[in-house]
Amino acid sequence: MSQVLYPRLAVIGCGLIGSSVIRAARACGVVGQVAVADSSAEVRKRVIALGLADEVTDDPLVAARDADLVLFATPPLTIGRVAAQVADALKPGATVSDVGSVKAAVADAFAGVMPASVFVIPGHPIAGAETSGPDAGFAGLFQGRWTILTPRPNEDAAYASALERLTLFWTALGAQVDLMDERHHDLVLAVTSHLPHLIAYNIVGTAADLEEVTRSEVIKYSAGGFRDFTRIAASDPVMWRDVFLANKEAVLEILGRFTEDLQALSRAIRWGEGDKLEELFTRTREIRRGVIDAGQETAEPDFGRQRRTP
Amino acid sequence: MSQVLYPRLAVIGCGLIGSSVIRAARACGVVGQVAVADSSAEVRKRVIALGLADEVTDDPLVAARDADLVLFATPPLTIGRVAAQVADALKPGATVSDVGSVKAAVADAFAGVMPASVFVIPGHPIAGAETSGPDAGFAGLFQGRWTILTPRPNEDAAYASALERLTLFWTALGAQVDLMDERHHDLVLAVTSHLPHLIAYNIVGTAADLEEVTRSEVIKYSAGGFRDFTRIAASDPVMWRDVFLANKEAVLEILGRFTEDLQALSRAIRWGEGDKLEELFTRTREIRRGVIDAGQETAEPDFGRQRRTP
Repeated sequence: MSQVLYPRLAVIGCGLIGSSVIRAARACGVVGQVAVADSSAEVRKRVIALGLADEVTDDPLVAARDADLVLFATPPLTIGRVAAQVADALKPGATVSDVGSVKAAVADAFAGVMPASVFVIPGHPIAGAETSGPDAGFAGLFQGRWTILTPRPNEDAAYASALERLTLFWTALGAQVDLMDERHHDLVLAVTSHLPHLIAYNIVGTAADLEEVTRSEVIKYSAGGFRDFTRIAASDPVMWRDVFLANKEAVLEILGRFTEDLQALSRAIRWGEGDKLEELFTRTREIRRGVIDAGQETAEPDFGRQRRTP
Repeated sequence: MSQVLYPRLAVIGCGLIGSSVIRAARACGVVGQVAVADSSAEVRKRVIALGLADEVTDDPLVAARDADLVLFATPPLTIGRVAAQVADALKPGATVSDVGSVKAAVADAFAGVMPASVFVIPGHPIAGAETSGPDAGFAGLFQGRWTILTPRPNEDAAYASALERLTLFWTALGAQVDLMDERHHDLVLAVTSHLPHLIAYNIVGTAADLEEVTRSEVIKYSAGGFRDFTRIAASDPVMWRDVFLANKEAVLEILGRFTEDLQALSRAIRWGEGDKLEELFTRTREIRRGVIDAGQETAEPDFGRQRRTP
């Protein structure tokens, strides 16, 4: 067991990520009391049934009061509104963070409402699954994964100390921590996560709408590659809606490049330019080798978690 | 052990699929002698070292002579040329088939050169892996997967009997067999396999070419979705080059629809139309449920085989 880093943890929004944080934090003993706020009565019922928290409420203010770490795990666009609700109740010296896949919009939302007496350190654990809700969470979700924190630059020693504590927290949960500027984070994630999800949602939508090929054929013969896209495209709809809206500029920028490249590829196919195709297909193998060498491909991938519990 | 269906099996081209067919066919005893022809000296050396065949040669004609089943497992565009080389040596009554991901082009290639004395039945086992070559094959590759055969319509009883035998062969290897018109096969596969590969190759290429985000960042933070694309984009470059060239029309047709849909999605993001995004992201979940219900998501996915042997 590690030492208790936060005597009281408040998790606002208890879905896959929120509930996984609680499970992992309790398992390694880095938190004392756990309070959960969630706007959904169904989620609150499950959180109680799963015994995930000491307090369960629909009021974020009640959960956040006296908390040492207030962790927002709601869809990104909800954070600004809820942060405004709790701001006045926050204990001076508390750390305020989140787990969203978009960081600049979250930093702006916090900046607009949070008092100077708390330490705002936005964060993002790069881990997920196609499943949603408090039942889907598990303690090992962050094991061997990266968590990116996007601290404010040029803060004082007290802020540095709060950052150090939050780093210890994520490390105890099994993650490695990186620090990054929030705008760079949003660009990196637009490439490594947001565009892949957009593409996956899109291809599954295209396939579902075909007239000449039935849905049951698409499903039956999905082992040739499509199946992997259906897994990604089963991710939480509201969360991902918010990600694309909150990271609009970076997503559209990367999508523009993707589309340009795809048009060139389309042209190469139309004109039978086999050498261009082969050159690209050979080059992309190197990236795969990098992913394997970097240990980002594990025996137990976080996407595809259902494989463990069929 | 099943009964011997083909006293002599000739496999032309012994990569991932060819070597898996041999391993599976030997394991269940449906073949007697196995002859392999491969144009690569390195592949032949590995086939010998692995003890996969009774005869190993660089000459397809030598392997195909006296064979009861001649199975082409070369990249699709090679089949026409090689088929012409062996046509004269084929035993009357032999079955000629293949394992390519494109069927109309292969059927045309066979039609141009094969004598009337053999039974031509193109085929396609929908199973694969990111790995290539004879060492990558394994006997269980076809277990629980579909193999599509695209027989000529309106053939006689002898042809029907040859088709029945080939169906028994694939069933013995663990696959379920479906019959389909070759043009419909090519459209279905354009959706469920070819477009997913094209998209995966493209996104990995786009990511590799960015200036603002380094390759090491792309690799390091790939767990958010990108990683799954790198796996697909590590598939055999020459094989996939041929697939896109040989199934040009269906691929461009499906790619056109995909691009249209992507433009609509891009517009919805730009204009902040969250309801449109959420509607699509909710709809795509249904397809995923279908994939799981149909048992196409298994504990041991064929893509990502490296997970078993890290």
